[in-house]
Amino acid sequence: MPKVTFLPSQREVEAVAGEDILAAAAAGDIHINASCGGDGTCGKCKVHAKGAKLQTKSTARLTEEELAKGYVLACQTPVYDDMTVEIPLESELLSKGRSRIKTLTTGVDEWNRQLAELPSDPPVVKLYMELPEPSLNDSVSDLTRVTREVRRRLGVDDVLVDLQLTKMLPDVVRAGGWRVTATLYKEAGHARLTKIEAGDTTAAHYAVAVDIGTTTCSAQLVDLNETKILAEASAYNAQVSYGEDVISRMVYAKKESGLKLLQRKVVGTIDDLVAELIEKTGVEAAGIDVAVLAGNTVMTHLILGVGTDQIREAPYTPVFRFAPSVKASEVGFEKLPDVPLIFHPCVASYLGGDITSGVVAADVAKHEGLVLYIDIGTNGEIVLGNNEWLMGCSCSAGPAFEGAGVKDGVRSIDGAIERVSVEPDTFETVFTTIGGKLPLGVCGSGLIDLVAELFKAGVIDKRGKFHQDLPTNRVREGEYGWEFVVVWEKVAGVDRDIVITEVDVDNLMRAKAAVYAGITTLADSVGVSLADLEEVMIAGSFGNYIKVEEAIAIGLLPDLPVEKFRFVGNCSLLGSAKAAVSRDILARSAKITRSLSYMELSADNTFMDKYMSALFLPHTDKSLFPSV
Amino acid sequence: MPKVTFLPSQREVEAVAGEDILAAAAAGDIHINASCGGDGTCGKCKVHAKGAKLQTKSTARLTEEELAKGYVLACQTPVYDDMTVEIPLESELLSKGRSRIKTLTTGVDEWNRQLAELPSDPPVVKLYMELPEPSLNDSVSDLTRVTREVRRRLGVDDVLVDLQLTKMLPDVVRAGGWRVTATLYKEAGHARLTKIEAGDTTAAHYAVAVDIGTTTCSAQLVDLNETKILAEASAYNAQVSYGEDVISRMVYAKKESGLKLLQRKVVGTIDDLVAELIEKTGVEAAGIDVAVLAGNTVMTHLILGVGTDQIREAPYTPVFRFAPSVKASEVGFEKLPDVPLIFHPCVASYLGGDITSGVVAADVAKHEGLVLYIDIGTNGEIVLGNNEWLMGCSCSAGPAFEGAGVKDGVRSIDGAIERVSVEPDTFETVFTTIGGKLPLGVCGSGLIDLVAELFKAGVIDKRGKFHQDLPTNRVREGEYGWEFVVVWEKVAGVDRDIVITEVDVDNLMRAKAAVYAGITTLADSVGVSLADLEEVMIAGSFGNYIKVEEAIAIGLLPDLPVEKFRFVGNCSLLGSAKAAVSRDILARSAKITRSLSYMELSADNTFMDKYMSALFLPHTDKSLFPSV
Repeated sequence: MPKVTFLPSQREVEAVAGEDILAAAAAGDIHINASCGGDGTCGKCKVHAKGAKLQTKSTARLTEEELAKGYVLACQTPVYDDMTVEIPLESELLSKGRSRIKTLTTGVDEWNRQLAELPSDPPVVKLYMELPEPSLNDSVSDLTRVTREVRRRLGVDDVLVDLQLTKMLPDVVRAGGWRVTATLYKEAGHARLTKIEAGDTTAAHYAVAVDIGTTTCSAQLVDLNETKILAEASAYNAQVSYGEDVISRMVYAKKESGLKLLQRKVVGTIDDLVAELIEKTGVEAAGIDVAVLAGNTVMTHLILGVGTDQIREAPYTPVFRFAPSVKASEVGFEKLPDVPLIFHPCVASYLGGDITSGVVAADVAKHEGLVLYIDIGTNGEIVLGNNEWLMGCSCSAGPAFEGAGVKDGVRSIDGAIERVSVEPDTFETVFTTIGGKLPLGVCGSGLIDLVAELFKAGVIDKRGKFHQDLPTNRVREGEYGWEFVVVWEKVAGVDRDIVITEVDVDNLMRAKAAVYAGITTLADSVGVSLADLEEVMIAGSFGNYIKVEEAIAIGLLPDLPVEKFRFVGNCSLLGSAKAAVSRDILARSAKITRSLSYMELSADNTFMDKYMSALFLPHTDKSLFPSV
Repeated sequence: MPKVTFLPSQREVEAVAGEDILAAAAAGDIHINASCGGDGTCGKCKVHAKGAKLQTKSTARLTEEELAKGYVLACQTPVYDDMTVEIPLESELLSKGRSRIKTLTTGVDEWNRQLAELPSDPPVVKLYMELPEPSLNDSVSDLTRVTREVRRRLGVDDVLVDLQLTKMLPDVVRAGGWRVTATLYKEAGHARLTKIEAGDTTAAHYAVAVDIGTTTCSAQLVDLNETKILAEASAYNAQVSYGEDVISRMVYAKKESGLKLLQRKVVGTIDDLVAELIEKTGVEAAGIDVAVLAGNTVMTHLILGVGTDQIREAPYTPVFRFAPSVKASEVGFEKLPDVPLIFHPCVASYLGGDITSGVVAADVAKHEGLVLYIDIGTNGEIVLGNNEWLMGCSCSAGPAFEGAGVKDGVRSIDGAIERVSVEPDTFETVFTTIGGKLPLGVCGSGLIDLVAELFKAGVIDKRGKFHQDLPTNRVREGEYGWEFVVVWEKVAGVDRDIVITEVDVDNLMRAKAAVYAGITTLADSVGVSLADLEEVMIAGSFGNYIKVEEAIAIGLLPDLPVEKFRFVGNCSLLGSAKAAVSRDILARSAKITRSLSYMELSADNTFMDKYMSALFLPHTDKSLFPSV
């Protein structure tokens, strides 16, 4: 087998002859950026490759300069013989950072306060029971002895027990001298025995709450006795090596073993988070009784190993909305004990469990006034409503907000330009990067700032086109047309100028237009005015970085007083934690799934008009943005 | 590995050095009788062994003549080197016959009539559904599309679906062009999807009904559309090589891997029956949607691989009464498709699902008049009651009725003496054998006849002791004390006289005393007289062979007019077939399990007195048997 040596890590991987460099790297758990999932279309997987028999299929998206320097696309270059592959800094940095992402510790007190306010009624309960010992006059079965007590204590008719627990039962009840702790999962209409232990183990009663993000997965350990979050951990979703957005993941899932591999990757990511939570808290794994998870519809399907082919194509039908009842071992968890997995249900293919979880956690359906809930990523998911009705839609924003599909775009990693301003007279830029590192590229919030600032400084017009006669060498014609130099090479962390091109501006404008058109289509369909909004909730990590004024300036968010906007954080994770504490949350999540009116924008006549009108800065109809 | 050649089959088996001949034979699927399960106590596993390094641990129960001839006990003789083992005829015959037992085809018309009278409401139903195709305006998930139709059709709230079926779903519904057949198991409070198929497959809708007997397993294929039994098949329970009764099976289950092996054996037996049913009818396995099984408590535990240790010892607690919900694959079925297994519940450790199934099938709880239901084997299970109350008990009869624990006892195999009379003057015997073959030994019904006839002819007294001064050479003193020669060697199928010893008579008397004492203890506890019995139902295969008059003559059955006795056949199997057709049967079976008053005879003060009083022919109290 040919050997591939990856630089700068100097790790060696044995490749299957004929597989491409990207696949070889993935098999060796080495990350190379590949937004498109290995389709040869995004150009992100460029690497320096040296070796005999080097041949490449396609060089799409590589500049002449890059070709001259010997770059190839990892996904288009098969390995036939030993080779050395140098992965550029942008990819490598992510690789180093991917196992640990700085977690947001702010807000945990507030979250704990919210958890404590819920009616304490966890879906999984522990019952310590002192059973009467059998005698000749009471020789009822071991199982009946347990279930009759469960029925009495929980007031349920049916107690389901599987074969495995039945087999263990006689030894456990006797080892405990008829004092045992039963763990039960209260499902609709019945309780399911999920664990039986000798003695009183009720002191250890924990849940893992999970947000399965397309890019980042986050988890918290919740003490169910104290109703308190003990620790949290986050990491990049290891699926990220197989495509940056849900579409490219679904493309990968269609490949042979692709579905299985993607399942294994995300399960492994969460397993690692569980291990980290256990390490941080010293809690024993055996004390974890349940995991509650929220993810978009594609993530929820992939983690269960359920195919996503139908989600990709019209009419976009998911296989399920309510996930089947499964135990952790069934999907391959190893560090998470074999507990029931409870998923927030998904409304539709592009309005998933992360949104139902978040909408419930943010109490959208408890507001009397009108609320807009937005979660922006490669898809913008939008929910509008109050305590009487809810409507939702999803618009494809493209990857621009995630820093992908943009020439010098990067994710929100250390070195990403997150905030930038452009001096109106000199066109000089002032910027800050995440972690204060040398700039590597521009992330989503930086791009919003940049487009807003370039517009205000008169570098681009309302159609996003460059003014070509400005007295600055920052505006120039590059290989991809007109561009603006954000950072000169000499002060950059990469060996080139960091620029934003007219194509990039166009991408961002299409992204913001899709979101704004989605918002107005929803509002118009029920005849409400955006001015009537009492509150705009911005959920997700994206919300932590953007500046509302700049987002309004480009026409992404509606032109409302800044105080109406609220960053609600990772509500998807909060909804998982809440559901672990109170069954009411899951009931509300289910109710939303059944009652929310989902608008399929591609089936709406007015959406495309609204989208076209929004392809201006800030909008064709200036009256909608009086403050700009 | 040492090689063992078994004669007369000449089959060679590689043995693990040090394991005994019995284990080596079992591993090679060669049957050797071993009533005690390899404890060295029954003496049934005698074989002729030749080879180097032959040493044997115990020769209990071997006669001097047998020792002289070179017999050893297979269970007491380890294999260290190559050897040749000749298995005697009694074992070998059973071995040949064990895969196929003559099935009782009489009565099927009557059974079909009874099935047709039940309310048709099978626990597993097939629904053909033409689902609306998804569109942009109706893009609900594939699963919801199926479950909302199921909910509408079945009127249930919850439809449970497992992960495996969820994964298959999108391909199946599309392959069928949204015309699919869903198979659902209606459990308490919900329906569980067990199969989903493209197109309309409702024409094939079958159940397998099973009676898991300790000795014999029987199965029927039931057409659920036509409510009709299509075929039946029976075979010896392959566990029989590991002990003849439930006690020795439980002893074996405690050995390393014993439980697993016993499970594999009985599952294999039923798998073979399923294959036979499929072959006989030409029905495709995929059309089988459910299996309903009835077995005693030990068999029900063993087939599920659940330990039986607590059943053996006071206070005799089973692990479960209601079996957990399992699918065929979970217990290792290979020929039976992966359908739900439904078990008749067990009342107590020694009153199992075979009895609840039988009691329901025989409509005991629908009789206004008093009914006695008896199933006699190594345990006598007795149920007394009517449509207002039911009581039950189990008495350990020992293996005599099954032809075991008796010097020349055999099971009801070809060549077994099933009927015998003794001339009062000449003491000559007239007998018939099963299959009309040369006599090999005496089976249970033959023993009852023999004891009754010997008593009537004055060969034995009311205490079962031999009159030693009779003018016949048939009565003689043998190695085990006084005995009666039933068949001389010259007309026997074995190379010795077939005898019945005083010890054998004693064994039979203890067996019949236990059953009769059980009956009277039950009756007395509720203050009813046996004369009040409207009907005595004799269930099980044993009932097919015994002659009521002889059974009364020895005091086994109460002295009632012969017309009050009814042989109800294998009601356990009938109850399984009925439960496959109508949920009402299982509901009644569950109700009986919960409401039947089980008497633990060992905890009853009067039982032992009654037992001692019954250790006479026919009884101490002659007034109880006026007709004798």
